[in-house]
Amino acid sequence: MSEAWKKRRAWLSALKWELPENLETPAQAAAFEGEHFLAPRNEKPELEEDAGLGEAYEITSQGETWRIRGGRTGLLYGVYALIRCLLTAGKIPEGICSPYYPLRMLNAWDNMSGDIERGYAGRSLWFEGGEFRYEPDRIRQLGRMLAFAGINVLCINNVNVHAPAQGLADEWLPDVEAFARILRPFGVRLMLSIDFSMPLQRGLETADPLDPRVQEWWRQQADRIWETVPDLAGFLVKADSEHRPGPNAYGRTHADGANMLARAVAPYGGVLVWRAFVYDCMQDWRDTHTDRPCAAYDLYHPMDGDFDENVILQVKNGPYDFQVREPVSPLFFGMPHTRLALELQLAQEYTGQQVDLYAMPPMWREIFDQIGKEKAQAIAAVTNLGRDDNWTGHPMAALNLYAFGRYAWDPDLEPEAVIREWVRLTYELKPEQENVLERILLKSRSVYEKYTSPLGLCWMVNPAYHYGPSPYGYEFQAWGTYNRADRDAVGIDRTSAGTGYTGQYPPALRDLFENKDTCPENLLLFFHRLPYTWRMRDGRTLIQRIYDDHFEGYDEAEKMKEELETLGLPAVDAAEVIERAERQLQNAREWRDVINTFFHRLSGVPDEKGRKIYL
Amino acid sequence: MSEAWKKRRAWLSALKWELPENLETPAQAAAFEGEHFLAPRNEKPELEEDAGLGEAYEITSQGETWRIRGGRTGLLYGVYALIRCLLTAGKIPEGICSPYYPLRMLNAWDNMSGDIERGYAGRSLWFEGGEFRYEPDRIRQLGRMLAFAGINVLCINNVNVHAPAQGLADEWLPDVEAFARILRPFGVRLMLSIDFSMPLQRGLETADPLDPRVQEWWRQQADRIWETVPDLAGFLVKADSEHRPGPNAYGRTHADGANMLARAVAPYGGVLVWRAFVYDCMQDWRDTHTDRPCAAYDLYHPMDGDFDENVILQVKNGPYDFQVREPVSPLFFGMPHTRLALELQLAQEYTGQQVDLYAMPPMWREIFDQIGKEKAQAIAAVTNLGRDDNWTGHPMAALNLYAFGRYAWDPDLEPEAVIREWVRLTYELKPEQENVLERILLKSRSVYEKYTSPLGLCWMVNPAYHYGPSPYGYEFQAWGTYNRADRDAVGIDRTSAGTGYTGQYPPALRDLFENKDTCPENLLLFFHRLPYTWRMRDGRTLIQRIYDDHFEGYDEAEKMKEELETLGLPAVDAAEVIERAERQLQNAREWRDVINTFFHRLSGVPDEKGRKIYL
Repeated sequence: MSEAWKKRRAWLSALKWELPENLETPAQAAAFEGEHFLAPRNEKPELEEDAGLGEAYEITSQGETWRIRGGRTGLLYGVYALIRCLLTAGKIPEGICSPYYPLRMLNAWDNMSGDIERGYAGRSLWFEGGEFRYEPDRIRQLGRMLAFAGINVLCINNVNVHAPAQGLADEWLPDVEAFARILRPFGVRLMLSIDFSMPLQRGLETADPLDPRVQEWWRQQADRIWETVPDLAGFLVKADSEHRPGPNAYGRTHADGANMLARAVAPYGGVLVWRAFVYDCMQDWRDTHTDRPCAAYDLYHPMDGDFDENVILQVKNGPYDFQVREPVSPLFFGMPHTRLALELQLAQEYTGQQVDLYAMPPMWREIFDQIGKEKAQAIAAVTNLGRDDNWTGHPMAALNLYAFGRYAWDPDLEPEAVIREWVRLTYELKPEQENVLERILLKSRSVYEKYTSPLGLCWMVNPAYHYGPSPYGYEFQAWGTYNRADRDAVGIDRTSAGTGYTGQYPPALRDLFENKDTCPENLLLFFHRLPYTWRMRDGRTLIQRIYDDHFEGYDEAEKMKEELETLGLPAVDAAEVIERAERQLQNAREWRDVINTFFHRLSGVPDEKGRKIYL
Repeated sequence: MSEAWKKRRAWLSALKWELPENLETPAQAAAFEGEHFLAPRNEKPELEEDAGLGEAYEITSQGETWRIRGGRTGLLYGVYALIRCLLTAGKIPEGICSPYYPLRMLNAWDNMSGDIERGYAGRSLWFEGGEFRYEPDRIRQLGRMLAFAGINVLCINNVNVHAPAQGLADEWLPDVEAFARILRPFGVRLMLSIDFSMPLQRGLETADPLDPRVQEWWRQQADRIWETVPDLAGFLVKADSEHRPGPNAYGRTHADGANMLARAVAPYGGVLVWRAFVYDCMQDWRDTHTDRPCAAYDLYHPMDGDFDENVILQVKNGPYDFQVREPVSPLFFGMPHTRLALELQLAQEYTGQQVDLYAMPPMWREIFDQIGKEKAQAIAAVTNLGRDDNWTGHPMAALNLYAFGRYAWDPDLEPEAVIREWVRLTYELKPEQENVLERILLKSRSVYEKYTSPLGLCWMVNPAYHYGPSPYGYEFQAWGTYNRADRDAVGIDRTSAGTGYTGQYPPALRDLFENKDTCPENLLLFFHRLPYTWRMRDGRTLIQRIYDDHFEGYDEAEKMKEELETLGLPAVDAAEVIERAERQLQNAREWRDVINTFFHRLSGVPDEKGRKIYL
């Protein structure tokens, strides 16, 4: 195997020493890392474990000694926080510092075949050929990366559980434990995605959650599981969604299904994470009453309060599916008596597939501001990791993984601050280059948004692989993903006069979105059907705004590429970044021209500025 | 393995006796089949081999004796012709009967993995898991089916040669010979698809056809091949097409490439079949000058006369790719000094994938009439065969395989006659049921045509799998497959005022197509760009014609289904046919509504008859 990954340390570029194999606890890791970082500076760590502090820590200093008091993993987080602050000229936090979300999970969509669903950074880091296969050194380094960022749970297998991954919760348990052991010193616990129909596959006649035999089966299975992997965090379940099995087959509710599993794992302190990504994926496009964004709220809101204490309902940030621009999911306002996890996607499925540069912190800032961080009690993200030497395909996609951990710890962070941290941890650039790179990253999402689906319209991607434009590619499919563009108008009316989706929000948001004149313009085509001649607030027509955005988006991608070329990155990163920037520019050109042509063919309206639109 | 296939004999339903393993020559097969068929009728065969007759035969009778004089395989063809005539109440041919095309080939697109590219009848009959794997009994039965239909060459592997299939012409040769031995008594010879870059893969530095080392390598390879498989028919080559390797990489012409290979196989009487399916599959959709249908003629016409005697240029029937309605390829008129093969596709890639009923003889009748049978010197078809018990997925898709053999023998046949033969050979129906089935089959292509892409527009299928409608799915792709529909008009002007494609035809056809008023209306949108308000010859507008066709096509599919349900087919065929007719009806509904909605959204024109068009 190539060892090139050892030189690609992402945000740990300053931690150049290797990790030994014999670390067993976070306290040992904390001591090891603290020593190695501080010794060359003629400083030293003094660690004091205080079990009551859990993941929290406090940093104080006295002369050359950094005193860190912390809980079991708090000590390690404290050491890494100190290193981070010293490397980035950040302010050492005062007082006790603890994470906002106790559960800060990564969801890996890795199949045991080694493929990763929506993976854009190579194959799985831990599965290959239907079994566990990994480099322990690399997993150890991964644990260090995650701990440094602040992530504490890793769900190792795809939520779509393909054979033989059902067996991870069964015959593969010793291998799961061997894997868990490597990550344990970094405070990273494992989670498993399970298949709701597993009892059926293991000899029972049913998987009905109200059947005592099924309940007993899961209880016994949980006994076996926690006996082997005592600190397993819990189960993640995708049920009754996109053809996955679930409780509906037995006429049971999702609360029935989730609670049954939750009770099996409760004795071990396990959580049961139930994904709320449920909708009709066999919709008839002719049906204009069914509206996919309504689906999750319609299903779960009536169940609020029905879930057990250790159930977490995991809700994607928007009501569709990780599009570049969606409103926040109304479920965050509709489940006050249910524990929720906010689910984000680091894998750039619809946002450039780790070819196009797309830094997520600005998007997350908006999401937290709109939802209110307290609406969720946990946070999860689909990873962007893979076996590529640089870990994330695009070296700068590592920013999103790092920043996810940081936001999970502190959702009040400003994007500028997180980006600056990551840049300084990753690269040694001159101050003016740092400024350029930070500006590029801050802007990258709005650039991508400009040249892709306009104003919250969503889904204009190639259906087969979700990269590149296909404005009508999803239009007559069964996925509930329509733009209904015709020669006069585009979009779906989701107000009370239309599908009624706006009614799922609390009054203030409802009114904001309901009204064409107050609806944020970047969401205008998510909520409203509008004629091409609609006047935007700055006086431009809707169609002209679409054209302008697409020409500007391309031009900005071109400028971004030119700036990236002159940044002075390390050679290997520079080569990868520039190669991707070239592909991004081709992609931006394709999007610009396809979207403009599509709307020009429909509307017949020429560009006011006479720029080239192909016929 | 299931033996259910033994009961599914397609057009050999009357030949209920098993074939023995020990047949070695067509003469032995002829004697065996003749005896078994005639004995129960108290008649007998008298066979006289006359080597000079080759594949030809003559049938005469005297009392209870049928006297058949024929060449090596002619004897077997004579016996089968006799059986066919006796079973279908056909007229015994007078005088010597010989096939029109000496080379009557099937091209199987089977990969050694066992997958079949564009296969809709299950997995490969002879490959699985990267090696030969087959039931000898079934291959023997296949030989019998092919001989009965009149087919004499089988190219066993995909023209896209995926590893390890390069080795069929090398280390797999003993297995090829073992397979050939089973088919030899039925007069079926094998052909191999080869990879033009094979010398490169086997250690040479180049595959340049003008490099003496490459020429020598192929000569020696041909020695090895024919030493092992002495009656191999030759090679089939897809080169410089859809990313396959070819002579262009070395700055050489296709004539250079084909002739080099042809000279290697010539000493053994082998032919070198070179596919003319070459076009720019990386086209920019913005480029309106490049026009894919022009590609093959532009490339090959200037090379007419440059090919060796034993090269056959294999040309698809139309200039695109087996769409439901295309004009004939102009290459058939532009290569008078080159041997051509007409390539048809039995696999229903774009024509319903052996779910939708689609009998091809009416289409072939049109093709032969337009081209003139003498323009080609050989004929080939992509098979529709697979491991399904019924051989062809849809039991009635077997008609196309049978009819291909019959047309290859006699291109003057009328569709009604071939269909009647097949129906009588396959089923024992009452005369009125026979009439119904024949009418359904005769009409099936026009039904499919009505509910799919209108009037020669082509390519409105789902790009990923070619089944079902996606009117803009190919529109912004790199395949050169555009309809350029906008709010006012649809189609591409391929006349002298447009891309100039019509200029590739001889004057009479050119003028016919060039003029909107003489162009066959079913090809109107292939050749012309027209406004939706264009008046068809019957006074309807173009848009109304599109709507009418789509409503009618669905209604006709529905009627076809009802008729099929009452036919009185054998139970197992009936179940398969009806299950597929139901899926076809769903497909027809989808096509009807998607196409009508698409054009309604663009044109804004309502249906004159007020039928339902979804918005």
